[in-house]
Amino acid sequence: MNRMTAISPGAEAADPAALVTRLAEAARLAQRTLAAMPSAARAAALHLAADALRAATPAVLEANAKDLAAGKANGLSGAMLDRLALDDARIAGIADAVAAVADLPDPVGQVIDQSEQPNGLKFQRIRVPIGVIGIIYESRPNVTADATALCVRAGNAALLRGGSEAVHSNRAIHAALVEGLIQGGVPAEAVPLIPSQDRACVGAMLTASGLIDMIVPRGGKSLVARVQADARVPVLAHLDGINHTYIHHAADPAMAEAIAVNAKLRRTGICGSMETLLIDSAYPKAAALVAALIDAGCEVRGDGRAQALDRRVIPASANDWDTEYLDAIASVAVVDGLEDALAHIARHSSAHTDVIVTADEAAAERFLAEVDSAIVMHNASSQYADGGEFGLGAEIGIATGRLHARGPVALEGLTTYKWQVRGSGQTRP
Amino acid sequence: MNRMTAISPGAEAADPAALVTRLAEAARLAQRTLAAMPSAARAAALHLAADALRAATPAVLEANAKDLAAGKANGLSGAMLDRLALDDARIAGIADAVAAVADLPDPVGQVIDQSEQPNGLKFQRIRVPIGVIGIIYESRPNVTADATALCVRAGNAALLRGGSEAVHSNRAIHAALVEGLIQGGVPAEAVPLIPSQDRACVGAMLTASGLIDMIVPRGGKSLVARVQADARVPVLAHLDGINHTYIHHAADPAMAEAIAVNAKLRRTGICGSMETLLIDSAYPKAAALVAALIDAGCEVRGDGRAQALDRRVIPASANDWDTEYLDAIASVAVVDGLEDALAHIARHSSAHTDVIVTADEAAAERFLAEVDSAIVMHNASSQYADGGEFGLGAEIGIATGRLHARGPVALEGLTTYKWQVRGSGQTRP
Repeated sequence: MNRMTAISPGAEAADPAALVTRLAEAARLAQRTLAAMPSAARAAALHLAADALRAATPAVLEANAKDLAAGKANGLSGAMLDRLALDDARIAGIADAVAAVADLPDPVGQVIDQSEQPNGLKFQRIRVPIGVIGIIYESRPNVTADATALCVRAGNAALLRGGSEAVHSNRAIHAALVEGLIQGGVPAEAVPLIPSQDRACVGAMLTASGLIDMIVPRGGKSLVARVQADARVPVLAHLDGINHTYIHHAADPAMAEAIAVNAKLRRTGICGSMETLLIDSAYPKAAALVAALIDAGCEVRGDGRAQALDRRVIPASANDWDTEYLDAIASVAVVDGLEDALAHIARHSSAHTDVIVTADEAAAERFLAEVDSAIVMHNASSQYADGGEFGLGAEIGIATGRLHARGPVALEGLTTYKWQVRGSGQTRP
Repeated sequence: MNRMTAISPGAEAADPAALVTRLAEAARLAQRTLAAMPSAARAAALHLAADALRAATPAVLEANAKDLAAGKANGLSGAMLDRLALDDARIAGIADAVAAVADLPDPVGQVIDQSEQPNGLKFQRIRVPIGVIGIIYESRPNVTADATALCVRAGNAALLRGGSEAVHSNRAIHAALVEGLIQGGVPAEAVPLIPSQDRACVGAMLTASGLIDMIVPRGGKSLVARVQADARVPVLAHLDGINHTYIHHAADPAMAEAIAVNAKLRRTGICGSMETLLIDSAYPKAAALVAALIDAGCEVRGDGRAQALDRRVIPASANDWDTEYLDAIASVAVVDGLEDALAHIARHSSAHTDVIVTADEAAAERFLAEVDSAIVMHNASSQYADGGEFGLGAEIGIATGRLHARGPVALEGLTTYKWQVRGSGQTRP
């Protein structure tokens, strides 16, 4: 079955493609076991994994201390070190998240639709796991657990490839999870950790057509861009979250201000944060809106008309309309009506999340219909762009591509379907 | 809007990428018009297109005669010429198919699911068109009409790239359809015909990420393989239809014989035809089954045990188990029980359509659950693997990939979805 078993470990370390092939082939075999397990057994195994992770807290903290020391020595930024750092509470949170995914409803086996033809053939489309999913991620060690839990819950194998800066933390978390999963009957081969030292392993994963069914990159723009550029395997990813909030002339001023400030500043580093505020030229409280953003600590870069609203507004450059700041900076443009707002969004949106604030239902419905983004919102903050907030329980990511799954992708997005056809001897005339 | 308008026609002809870019950008703009049309208006426009095609029968026949003459001069095979040839009845059939697609239920705007969160946010997932779809096809001119109809019905623009051997036929069919579509309010730019003389246009389509949302190849294995190898745009495709029919020991002999002969011989050139017959070693009528296939005109290539069943069985080579004959040839293997059949299928199936014939419901259910193919059937001929037979009305193709859509892909597979979120001023805590 495994055409790589003849290769010695030494030769394999020198050949990342052979290593990835061996692990992916083993994962595919293990995935069959996983898919054949009853849903409750997969859930129970994930609870055991969560328990094992809780019990391994001291070992995980020790490993994490090594990564943090190496990160400091290597000059990682404070933000990077914060993403890397674990403590008792964070580990408990990671374990709780694994347990929460275990308790999510299982999409596998769901009947999507069914029909019967006049010739008596019965058709059912049922959800099945995708198969082998490659996860390529950066410094946050919680992804090791999140991705494992989501993949296993939906019956998928996961090839986990974390960042080298988190290598010890990822290994410790992975070892604990695997201990619990094995107790629960899930083969360890279903969730292999790919060595993070060798960057060539990423290239091997990206070109492993037929071995890996889908790649999910989790990390910064440069990682995702590399994955999208080089992958020969389908990728579920979003690049930018250049999200717009359009304040229509009929917006309630208090609501407009609360939504704009929340959308931009609640957390500036997440992909659902607002980057561009579009203010209708007929909106009566534009100056107060811009002042509120600036007073709340946001740098505002504006077009000519936005600069006229507040002398603290900095001139925007052409680039600003296509920039994901992920910081306390917003670009602000004044637009002439819904049509103009739709045109600006069509030109500059990254198709992640765009929002209209208005009391005019007809304008809202037109915006929701015509803005061609994964998520379109009326009278709500774009910071709600999150699988948990959508009631999906957890998400593997937010997809801005157009095929397979769009917006927050949770368990359903980690499944595909097959057609089951039941007959009684029909032959086709 | 269109950064290519400054290029002269001469320069553009020399630059296929510029031509494809210009046509795709114009198609994307036109697609917005199409998507904003009411469903009934898109249906009415397709009926006008079908009428215009019927009215253009003489012009289409004249164009087809040119292609046939060129094909004969260029030494096209009889099968290729047959695929290319049109007559009154075939043109009427093509027009009827366009009208039938016009009458299919429109998936666009369907609410997939909806929910409300405790904070009052309301979520709906609604189907929307994918956008711009590239169709790359070979000699059959009917694809020009089929693909146009399916794309337009679901609100998509279609970039049509037919084979050079059908250039005049495709142009004549396209001109007629566009005449009808324009009458119905569909912009001609939504369904451009890409020049078929220049092979570089195919390469330009395959790498047009961001301009083309999905490529559908329709044609032989070498075309599909080239598209899959070179595409940077998502591809909806199947390569082989290496379909198995497994005759379980508890199969009814009359049913087994009827299904095997129909699955192989009804039409040998379609992707749903059986290529490999697996006969259980405990099935009592194996010799009669093999004899029936051979007596019906099928060449049988078998493993040792199959050869022992009938002296007319030719020895199979290792390649035979992975070969799509598309001809009156079948490979036959004798297997030891369901487990062995599942293992053979897992090793050799192309994940298109696999069938079990048995009166044992438990064995059938296990086969339907464990065979990981797009279509799995119990007691029916694999020749039913067709969107029309599945009640989907028509199909753009049969997908053997795992993401987005699987098996027969019809209108629903030409849509994606977006999330509409309706609030009342919610900001995220």
